[in-house]
Amino acid sequence: MKSFPVKQGVPGFRFAGQASGIKKSGKDLGLILSDAPCAAAGVFTRNTVKAAPVLVCKKRTAKGTLQSVLVNSGNANACTGARGIRDAERTCAAAAQTLGIRERLVAPCSTGVIGVPLPADTIISALPALAAAAAPGGIPSFAESILTTDTGTKVVSLQESVGGEPVRMCGIAKGAGMIMPNMATMLAFIVTDASVDSALLARLVREQTERTFNRISVDNDMSTNDTVLVMASGRRQRALTGPRSRGCAAFAALLHEVMRRLARMIVVDGEGATKLLQIEVTRARSEADAKKAARQVASSCLVKTAFFGEDFNWGRIMGALGSSGARFDPDRIDIFFNGVQAVKNSAGVQGSIPRLRSIMKKKEIALQIDLKSGSHCCTLTTCDLSYEYVKINADYTT
Amino acid sequence: MKSFPVKQGVPGFRFAGQASGIKKSGKDLGLILSDAPCAAAGVFTRNTVKAAPVLVCKKRTAKGTLQSVLVNSGNANACTGARGIRDAERTCAAAAQTLGIRERLVAPCSTGVIGVPLPADTIISALPALAAAAAPGGIPSFAESILTTDTGTKVVSLQESVGGEPVRMCGIAKGAGMIMPNMATMLAFIVTDASVDSALLARLVREQTERTFNRISVDNDMSTNDTVLVMASGRRQRALTGPRSRGCAAFAALLHEVMRRLARMIVVDGEGATKLLQIEVTRARSEADAKKAARQVASSCLVKTAFFGEDFNWGRIMGALGSSGARFDPDRIDIFFNGVQAVKNSAGVQGSIPRLRSIMKKKEIALQIDLKSGSHCCTLTTCDLSYEYVKINADYTT
Repeated sequence: MKSFPVKQGVPGFRFAGQASGIKKSGKDLGLILSDAPCAAAGVFTRNTVKAAPVLVCKKRTAKGTLQSVLVNSGNANACTGARGIRDAERTCAAAAQTLGIRERLVAPCSTGVIGVPLPADTIISALPALAAAAAPGGIPSFAESILTTDTGTKVVSLQESVGGEPVRMCGIAKGAGMIMPNMATMLAFIVTDASVDSALLARLVREQTERTFNRISVDNDMSTNDTVLVMASGRRQRALTGPRSRGCAAFAALLHEVMRRLARMIVVDGEGATKLLQIEVTRARSEADAKKAARQVASSCLVKTAFFGEDFNWGRIMGALGSSGARFDPDRIDIFFNGVQAVKNSAGVQGSIPRLRSIMKKKEIALQIDLKSGSHCCTLTTCDLSYEYVKINADYTT
Repeated sequence: MKSFPVKQGVPGFRFAGQASGIKKSGKDLGLILSDAPCAAAGVFTRNTVKAAPVLVCKKRTAKGTLQSVLVNSGNANACTGARGIRDAERTCAAAAQTLGIRERLVAPCSTGVIGVPLPADTIISALPALAAAAAPGGIPSFAESILTTDTGTKVVSLQESVGGEPVRMCGIAKGAGMIMPNMATMLAFIVTDASVDSALLARLVREQTERTFNRISVDNDMSTNDTVLVMASGRRQRALTGPRSRGCAAFAALLHEVMRRLARMIVVDGEGATKLLQIEVTRARSEADAKKAARQVASSCLVKTAFFGEDFNWGRIMGALGSSGARFDPDRIDIFFNGVQAVKNSAGVQGSIPRLRSIMKKKEIALQIDLKSGSHCCTLTTCDLSYEYVKINADYTT
């Protein structure tokens, strides 16, 4: 897999990002446009409270075909009742008219403050300029338009030979806060020129989301708007129709790698994050036990603040493991920090303390937690909890 | 129920608190001594990783009789392996010898840093002075000796007529961080001169812990050392032997009120807390749904930082409810802040915003969340998440 210059784009797609006036300043409206209707698949938040655009987007994506995505930042259009649905549909209808395509092929996405009506007219007024700006090289502009508290754009471009043909894939995401390892965890848009049957695409997107976006965590809060959308323009001749198609494994690996890199970017840019933490739980009795243990450690405020303070405090990891509900022998836990053993059979390894204290100062720390109870494992990526996280979230709407 | 001066003590009990040298400065060793073996009951952490003193204390309390409790702060004696158990037993044996009582009637409790061997010899050296200092009026001194990051002692003293006799009850707790609404949530010691059968006492302690200490939350982390211990000296003549004994309801109410007040003090003194939040979920489909919803709101970092920032952001409450796993109609939620309606059928009530913004500035805020899905309810008490929480926990061990 090699990367390619984002400005070269992905055959079959155009992109744009503009400042429409939803936010006080900066780009806040983005567009992805395929030259023709194309295969599409999505994964959406499992939150019971789903934003209006999620409900509309999910319904339209379920048909397996889309041609355009209209995304706004600065307003989540969540908890906005029947009006929210009407606003999502109305902006998509206007976009369809401007673009000259069918309305049901336009999918809406929103991110931002919950509970404030979407300024639909502001968006609609901005559509002609947005459509006019759409270009194959518009990815950086689109990537900017979907950001909220993110400190930078998140774009991954990779190409790979799929069934003997060169295939391009580009992913664009926004993340930062409200990131929880449960289903789609933020907004991510992935486009490719591969030719993929939509049922197969839906399956691959589900599988790879589970292995990537569902393995990261910032603050354990699950958003009302999380969406992962993948569109395949089919510009390549060799179609992938099922899991045994030639090239399907290569395509799945490409999708995995784009998602994995985007997921990692989201954690690195976690709200206020100063460190990247990888939590690997091994030898758990079941996959569920491995997940429970990893999630409890990854979401413990006490563990995360200790890493922020570069305070070597493995007892908090033991406390989190014990409260996770995972089954294990509390006297047999081993814990390693970047490969250096800190805990052996649930007791501290005194000789390693100087080395462990210096590991705590690193920007990336891999925790390996060996439960010695079975053969299952789970790896999650998370970040520390800093003053800055509190500051960002204490002041978000005002 | 009336309070009484703590210095007057509770008939049958003596207390002491001393600086033994476990901590760099301040009191760190406490003693409760009953004149004779007495009825005792306890509730302990559900954390799979239990500290050595919890294992020893639980076993001894299960017999229903104790005479003394030896508590230290500054070291949790958790994750200390077989040595931890020996240290807990050894300090209790030395205390029993010093006090001239049976070893198995001394219960150990520890709180502080995890994973560091208990300085048992330091404790043992301090025992003669501690025993000599034990006095009926020693409650304030004892209360001080059990603190860690607490900003002040937590003592409640109440008297009530139980079966026609005046009964005294005094509770002493420490809390601050690692507070999660799941079983015993910190250290709490309650002594009374009532005469209560130990099986009945065990039952009442379990029931009232569930309704008080299990309904608070600071940071959703469950400790390895949480313990609630209740001792009844039996100085009163009228014994409570079963739930139908005359005075049993009055005694249960007294126990409830002492526990409720201690629980509230723990949240008010939550690490870095600036506000007290009461989360009441009503009309849930089941008790489990009510608890899930209340806990998710009470443990959401996004909700808690918004309260710290006095940022009226009800969307985060909706987001937390939706990710709780509780069953409800996402379009029918009502939310009230101190009785003022903020959300009606899952949409914001625009007219109330100025009043709601001023409620956000208050020190105590009661959220009422009406799920309109059934008849079950759950109330939790929690606090906000501040810079100070991060600071305290980033620097704890070093």
